[in-house]
Amino acid sequence: MQFEKLKMSKKIPAINAQAEAAALARQQQLTKPPGSLGRLEDLACWFAARLGSPAPAMPRCEIFVFAADHGVAARGVSAFPQSVTAQMVGNFARGGAAINVLASLEDCRIEVVDVGVASEEPPPSGVRNERVRAGTRDLAASPAMTPEELTAALGVGERCAREAASRGAQLLIAGEMGIANSTAAACLICSFTGAAPDAVVGRGTGVDDAGLTRKREVVQIALARVAAGAGAGAEARVEAGIGAGIARQTPPAALRILAELGGLEIAAMAGFYIESARHSVPVLLDGYIATAAALAAIALEPGVLSWMLASHRSAEAGHAVALEALGLEPLLDLGLRLGEGTGAALTLPIVRAALALHGKMATFGEAGVSGAVSESL
Amino acid sequence: MQFEKLKMSKKIPAINAQAEAAALARQQQLTKPPGSLGRLEDLACWFAARLGSPAPAMPRCEIFVFAADHGVAARGVSAFPQSVTAQMVGNFARGGAAINVLASLEDCRIEVVDVGVASEEPPPSGVRNERVRAGTRDLAASPAMTPEELTAALGVGERCAREAASRGAQLLIAGEMGIANSTAAACLICSFTGAAPDAVVGRGTGVDDAGLTRKREVVQIALARVAAGAGAGAEARVEAGIGAGIARQTPPAALRILAELGGLEIAAMAGFYIESARHSVPVLLDGYIATAAALAAIALEPGVLSWMLASHRSAEAGHAVALEALGLEPLLDLGLRLGEGTGAALTLPIVRAALALHGKMATFGEAGVSGAVSESL
Repeated sequence: MQFEKLKMSKKIPAINAQAEAAALARQQQLTKPPGSLGRLEDLACWFAARLGSPAPAMPRCEIFVFAADHGVAARGVSAFPQSVTAQMVGNFARGGAAINVLASLEDCRIEVVDVGVASEEPPPSGVRNERVRAGTRDLAASPAMTPEELTAALGVGERCAREAASRGAQLLIAGEMGIANSTAAACLICSFTGAAPDAVVGRGTGVDDAGLTRKREVVQIALARVAAGAGAGAEARVEAGIGAGIARQTPPAALRILAELGGLEIAAMAGFYIESARHSVPVLLDGYIATAAALAAIALEPGVLSWMLASHRSAEAGHAVALEALGLEPLLDLGLRLGEGTGAALTLPIVRAALALHGKMATFGEAGVSGAVSESL
Repeated sequence: MQFEKLKMSKKIPAINAQAEAAALARQQQLTKPPGSLGRLEDLACWFAARLGSPAPAMPRCEIFVFAADHGVAARGVSAFPQSVTAQMVGNFARGGAAINVLASLEDCRIEVVDVGVASEEPPPSGVRNERVRAGTRDLAASPAMTPEELTAALGVGERCAREAASRGAQLLIAGEMGIANSTAAACLICSFTGAAPDAVVGRGTGVDDAGLTRKREVVQIALARVAAGAGAGAEARVEAGIGAGIARQTPPAALRILAELGGLEIAAMAGFYIESARHSVPVLLDGYIATAAALAAIALEPGVLSWMLASHRSAEAGHAVALEALGLEPLLDLGLRLGEGTGAALTLPIVRAALALHGKMATFGEAGVSGAVSESL
C-alpha cells in the first residue's frame, strides 16, 4: 500500500464566525470591566464559535483512553515494565485510575480502547477490543507499524469519534496509556517540529539518569534511521529532525513518519482528532503524547487545528515545544505528567465556569450599573 | 487610641503534621508514577494538614464579598465612577455578578457585606449592613481611617469568619468590591514589601494612560506622606516604600499602615483572614486586593500564612510582587483582574479534583499494578 492512497476526504467544517461575534459583543455588556475575566472570556467565545451558539451551555463531553504497547520498551527507555500497560488497562476497567476519578467527577462517559496492548489474553471486560497488533515493532530498528497497521489504528480513532458524535457528544478528550509511548512521542515531536531531541526528550513517567541517556540515544537512532530511508521517492520532503516544520510535510510524508515512529494508540488519537473535527466536535488536548498525535493530525489535515483547545502544559519539557509549534497556549500549568487525559479532564470545570459566567452574568443594562468613566463621558 | 493596644491575642493553631505525613505516604501508593499529578498531589497534602485528615473530603466553602468606597476615588484613579460600588452591591444582591455565578456553580454560601459604601441609603435587602463609615478619607491627603474605624473594620471581618466557622465552614474565600481600591492596595503592597510603585501600580479595572500616571503619583504622594509622619515615636520601624520588608514591621506599625493607606473592605479582609486561621479554617486567597489584605494580616499575625493558599495570579502586575513577598505560588494564571473572589472560586474545582484523586484512586496494591522498574528490581 502506498501512503499517497491514504487520502483524507471529508472536509473539516469552518467555525461559526457569527456566533463568535455575538459572543464577543455579549462579553462587552456583562457587569465587569471589559477583559477582566481574561482567558475565560476568550474561552466562552471559542466555544460559541464551535458549538454554534452565542451563549452555549456546557458541552456534553466524552473521554476515550487509547492503550497500546511499544516494541521500543525493550530498550529500557521507561521507568516501568511493559506489563504495566495491561495492568493499567485493568485498573481503568475497574475504575481505579486517575482518569476514572476525574470522569466520574465530571459525569463524563469514558471508554477504554485496547488498540494494541502486548498481551496474549484479550482485554478485560469493559474494555473495547480494537487490538491491531500486540504492540508496535521497535522503532529504533524498523518501522513501528506497516501502512496497513497504521490505517487500522487511525480507523479505530475515527470510529470512536464518529460514534461519540452520533451519540451527541459536543466535546471530546483522548487520553492514552502505553509504557514507552513518550519515546515514540518524542520522535514524532522532533520530526514534526524540527526541534532537537535534547529539547524534546524527557523523563516520561520518571526514568532515571541512565534511562534518560538511553532514551535520547534511541530517539536519535530512530530519527537517523528514518532520515536515511527518506531520501528517495515520493516522501522526499520528509526531513526528520532539525529544520523540518509541520507545514513542510505533505500528508503522505506525515503518514510515513507516523508509521515509522508512532504508536498504535497515538495513531488512533490522530484519527480521533481528525474525525472529531469533521463532525464539528471540538477536542480538548491533553499532554505530551496527545500533542504529538495532534501534530500528526494537523500535518494530515491542517483544518483540525481550529477545533483544538490546549488544556495544560505538562511537566515534560518537550510538551511546551510541541504546543508552541501548534501556536496553542494551554489553560493550566500544574506540573502534571500522567497522561490518560487527566490534564484535559481537569480543565472541564474551567470551561464550565467560563460558559456559566458568559451565559448567566447580568449585563450593564439589566443591572443598572454604569460603564467605564471614559465611556460615560 | 494607641495602635499598641490593638493587640491580637488568640493564637494561630499549628497545622496537623501527622495527617500531612499520612497523606504524603498515601500519594506514593496511588496507581500513577510518583509525582505525576504535580501540584494536585501537594494540594491534597496541604488540605490533609489543615483539615486534619489523611484523605479529606471536599471542604465546605463559604464566600464573603466585602464592599467599601475610597476617598481617593475623587482623584480620578479609576476607570469607573465611585457610584459603581453601590451599583455592584445591588448586582451582588440580585445574583447578577460574576462571583454569584461561580458561587452558584460551586454551591457555596455567599454573603455580601457593606463595610463602608459611600451611599446615603442603607444597603439593599440581602446585603449585610456593617457600614463603618461611608467610604474612607482620601489617603493621599490624610489617614484613610482613624484607629477606631480600623478596629471596627477589622472586627467586621473577624465576626464574619467566626460565624462561618461556627456554621461549619471548612474553607473561606474573601472577595471585594470598591472603586479605587487597587490604589489603596498598591500603597499597602509598596509599604509591606518595599517594592517601588512603578512595579506595583497597574491599571486596575482598566484606567487609561493619563489615569495610570495620576494613580502612580497619588501612590507616591501617599507613601511620602506616611513616611514623613512615621519618623517619631513607637512606629519608628515603619519604612514605607523601598527597603521595608514585611518581617520588619511590628504589629503596631502594620496597623498604622493599614489605617493610613488601607480601605474598610481591605481591613475587614485582613481581620477575616486572621480569625479564620484562629479557627483552623484555611483560606483561598483571591487577587490583588485580597493579597494586599493578606500582607497586612501576616504582618499582624505571621502564623496566618500557613493557613493561606494562593488561587491565581492576576493580570495586575503588582500581584506577582505581593505573592512573591508571601512566598506563595498560585495555582491558576488566566489573566483575571476582576476581584470579587472570582479567582479563588474558580480554583475550587481544582481543589475538589485533587482531593477526589487523592481519596478515590486505587493503590498499586489494590490494583495489582507493578511499581517502577527501579523499585521492582
